[in-house]
Amino acid sequence: MLRIYNYQDLNTDDLQQLVQRNVDPANEIRSIVETIIDTVREHGDNALLDYAHKFDKVKLDKLYLDKAELSELANALQPEQKEALKTAYNNIYKFHKAQLVKEDKIETMPGVTCWRELRPIEKVGLYIPGGSAVLPSTFLMLGIPARIAGCKEIVVCSPPQKSGKVNAFIAYVAELLDIDRIYFAGGAQAIAAMAYGTESIAKVDKIFGPGNQFVTKAKTIIQSTTTTAIDMPAGPSEVLVIADETANPIFVAADLLAQAEHGSDSQAVLVTTSEQMAEAVIAELAKQLPTLPRAEIAGQAIANSYAVIVNSLNQAMQFSNLYAPEHLILATESWEQITGDIINAGSVFLGNLTPESVGDYASGTNHTLPTSTYARAYSGVSVDSFVKKITFQHISPQGINNIGPTVEILAELEGLHAHKNAVTVRLQK
Amino acid sequence: MLRIYNYQDLNTDDLQQLVQRNVDPANEIRSIVETIIDTVREHGDNALLDYAHKFDKVKLDKLYLDKAELSELANALQPEQKEALKTAYNNIYKFHKAQLVKEDKIETMPGVTCWRELRPIEKVGLYIPGGSAVLPSTFLMLGIPARIAGCKEIVVCSPPQKSGKVNAFIAYVAELLDIDRIYFAGGAQAIAAMAYGTESIAKVDKIFGPGNQFVTKAKTIIQSTTTTAIDMPAGPSEVLVIADETANPIFVAADLLAQAEHGSDSQAVLVTTSEQMAEAVIAELAKQLPTLPRAEIAGQAIANSYAVIVNSLNQAMQFSNLYAPEHLILATESWEQITGDIINAGSVFLGNLTPESVGDYASGTNHTLPTSTYARAYSGVSVDSFVKKITFQHISPQGINNIGPTVEILAELEGLHAHKNAVTVRLQK
Repeated sequence: MLRIYNYQDLNTDDLQQLVQRNVDPANEIRSIVETIIDTVREHGDNALLDYAHKFDKVKLDKLYLDKAELSELANALQPEQKEALKTAYNNIYKFHKAQLVKEDKIETMPGVTCWRELRPIEKVGLYIPGGSAVLPSTFLMLGIPARIAGCKEIVVCSPPQKSGKVNAFIAYVAELLDIDRIYFAGGAQAIAAMAYGTESIAKVDKIFGPGNQFVTKAKTIIQSTTTTAIDMPAGPSEVLVIADETANPIFVAADLLAQAEHGSDSQAVLVTTSEQMAEAVIAELAKQLPTLPRAEIAGQAIANSYAVIVNSLNQAMQFSNLYAPEHLILATESWEQITGDIINAGSVFLGNLTPESVGDYASGTNHTLPTSTYARAYSGVSVDSFVKKITFQHISPQGINNIGPTVEILAELEGLHAHKNAVTVRLQK
Repeated sequence: MLRIYNYQDLNTDDLQQLVQRNVDPANEIRSIVETIIDTVREHGDNALLDYAHKFDKVKLDKLYLDKAELSELANALQPEQKEALKTAYNNIYKFHKAQLVKEDKIETMPGVTCWRELRPIEKVGLYIPGGSAVLPSTFLMLGIPARIAGCKEIVVCSPPQKSGKVNAFIAYVAELLDIDRIYFAGGAQAIAAMAYGTESIAKVDKIFGPGNQFVTKAKTIIQSTTTTAIDMPAGPSEVLVIADETANPIFVAADLLAQAEHGSDSQAVLVTTSEQMAEAVIAELAKQLPTLPRAEIAGQAIANSYAVIVNSLNQAMQFSNLYAPEHLILATESWEQITGDIINAGSVFLGNLTPESVGDYASGTNHTLPTSTYARAYSGVSVDSFVKKITFQHISPQGINNIGPTVEILAELEGLHAHKNAVTVRLQK
């Protein structure tokens, strides 16, 4: 069950220890992943077919499902399931669409005009995991901003199910997103295929999506050895719940367990101003946990988690900022008073009626978020992740007279005379 | 001198070959860099003092210059030099300040409200190179957005000059940016110090700045082995100039040479609709090159560069998008007709009176830009690079009734029952 710490008993080293997550437990798999990448690079489609046989236990005839096949698979869904996916689609679309903003031109000096324009990343690759849990929600979270950004080519890879197909909901999301094909490729081999290209799969400029440690390791290697970018590094999922005496222990326990069921390496941290609340939550955990189908996984994650007792919401926030949680739930009626103090977090859930699972699926925000303290420097996926912001500048005849002498002095100062000359020849005209 | 290709003679492979830049020439230095990183990690300040002695040939008494020392050094500048740096500061500040935008709240469904808020990255590290050229402009380009973003701690590292000081202009920029200290650390050892921290230098969340191949390699290693982020991968600088018959060959040659003087591995590519223009530019290059103090470096870079003859501006843009240049100059009076076709570029210079060197120093745009085809997926540095965008959501009692059933269905569909339960317990209240 949840270990309990008192914040005031913890020194700086203890705190560092507590917020430390296992950043790279998978370095021993590096050489395995490098071999997979090299094999895909060399043998292309054939390597993918071999790996599907070896890892996914499927003998494939071809490497993808086309639109007609996806459409047929999608028919298996119930109308209310389709409706739920459509609602999620609409909310996510609405929230992300607002991120596409045209910026104003700025005249920094008379005759010197600068601005930024958005351009979609042309070719993007989306990895949709399909192992222990198949995640249509991830497909929505990546596909919608890619479509809003206007990416020209969207390559989607997902491991084949034992049936040699993909799940009905993945097929239906493909329909919602107007995706032509889903390629059968899982794990490190999918990442390699999208980074280097194969006969069937186009090489992309940026790869998105979560995955197991092989996928994550492959993304890290690709990022440092090719010009293909990745969305962000990824580790096990995590939540931090800040609860005061106005929280509901039933809700808090349910939120901690929702996180815990993701995997035994997930972490669910409770930070509370009330020792009674901590005890009530622990009692609720004991009650709810056994009722879950994934009780074993969730139990292991809870055993790797902990509670911290603090003496104020302010102190709670200090701990939270040090932890830099992927998901932060403010289970307090006073949430409005503390949001300004949030420095590091991926996505924040405000008040007692906003469970994390709403953001996982349908509130509109993205669920692809920085874990493992990465929230100190990284943001979650958004339309921004699918575009470049290109700067433009235009100088008028008046402008070159205004700015020219400044540039000449600075270029001289740096000893770059050709830089200076590029201005001088224009001033002389 | 510049080799000339005809676009129509080039097949897909030729084109791929032409736009290929050397992405990772430095992999053989990996183990050297790893040793430096490990040494700094283990021996902290002492390792930095040793490396300053070994690499920078300086015996340092202490590892930094403080505010008073910087202020004294800055006094050596001429008033017009200070004025030029201030003008650059003002323009860069004005352009970047506009990037700090507050976003609206979005009600995705009645009672479901989502939004993003900016938070500065708390601790950032700026690396200011100081080898063959000392670059106060880089200090401005990194320090200004860091200040606008509101970063709490800005650590600045720059290699010591032989004098055991930093240059007067670096000192003056520190004054403009209200930076308290400049640490004496160069190369891979500076990157290691900021990633792991030493007795004097704070560990940071993200490291910015260009540098030689040791710096670049260290940044790549840090990015994949720690939770410290980096601004972007970096390669040699480059420009692509699109010129039609309305271009001025004197200006074009001066722009190509401004790029070429950066280093012998820089690339300056001319794409022109006019063979006559290509010849005129080459004649101008021959005339201007010998007059430059850095003629030898620039000459080597020009020898590694080329011109492509195309039959339309449209075709020129096709080549440019494939090349994905760091700097793109549109040396044509018709620039307004083709900016919409730009897909991949770092920063764009419009018309015959807008040399790249204006953007390098003072127009207002940032000069820290993606090279080596990275412009296909990356943007240049901006205020965005120094902040996180955190998502927030709030659900009202009406909201949970509206969105709850959708989340229950989707969680069920993914087999995540604790996710479902986190909603169910709230709907039951």
